[in-house]
Amino acid sequence: MKKNPISLKQLSDSILEKHKNILVSEINDSCLRLAVIEGIFDWHHHSNSDELFLVLEGCLQIEFQDQESVELRPGDIFTVPAKKIHRTIAKTRTVNLCFELTKGETIFLQNESAQHGTN
Amino acid sequence: MKKNPISLKQLSDSILEKHKNILVSEINDSCLRLAVIEGIFDWHHHSNSDELFLVLEGCLQIEFQDQESVELRPGDIFTVPAKKIHRTIAKTRTVNLCFELTKGETIFLQNESAQHGTN
Repeated sequence: MKKNPISLKQLSDSILEKHKNILVSEINDSCLRLAVIEGIFDWHHHSNSDELFLVLEGCLQIEFQDQESVELRPGDIFTVPAKKIHRTIAKTRTVNLCFELTKGETIFLQNESAQHGTN
Repeated sequence: MKKNPISLKQLSDSILEKHKNILVSEINDSCLRLAVIEGIFDWHHHSNSDELFLVLEGCLQIEFQDQESVELRPGDIFTVPAKKIHRTIAKTRTVNLCFELTKGETIFLQNESAQHGTN
């Protein structure tokens, strides 16, 4: 067990990239990830895992192919069910938390490639 | 799938009790709970689930019987492993997020009674 709390602000301030997704903590078979997002992410879905977003900084839009998009501001949460195709759009830097299965699989639409542990 | 984001601030502002723990969202076999905590909670552990705390408002202390306590302020997270005996102390109102298994079991030390879904 880690002995000290983790400061999310300290962690996010250390990320200068426009897009970075890091593992913060593992909870049972799930994990909490910190995702700095700016720009448009590719269409994808998670074949085996729901994904909860909690926005800490900025304004994050989540788009879907079959329904209206949602806009999340700091303190807003939204859960994208497994298999639901989505993409994120952030006009400026956003800092987000994502809860998902640690072994969640990400399938991109463009080339059907699979990755583990990204949003 | 819910169509709109949930505002945690709006949700927590609606809770006037000194201690209340509500289910906000289910993610796979886990859940996100919003816990308003003020005062001292009884010693307990979760027999089958880790528990992640994220403090949104106030200052939450988590005490253990076998090591130093930790103090969490807004934006701080801490994960208590399954079976680890702990209790929370908040001198004034705190608003917290807890991520744990939906079927997490809570065992109180005083009377060894079990409850589901509380922190």
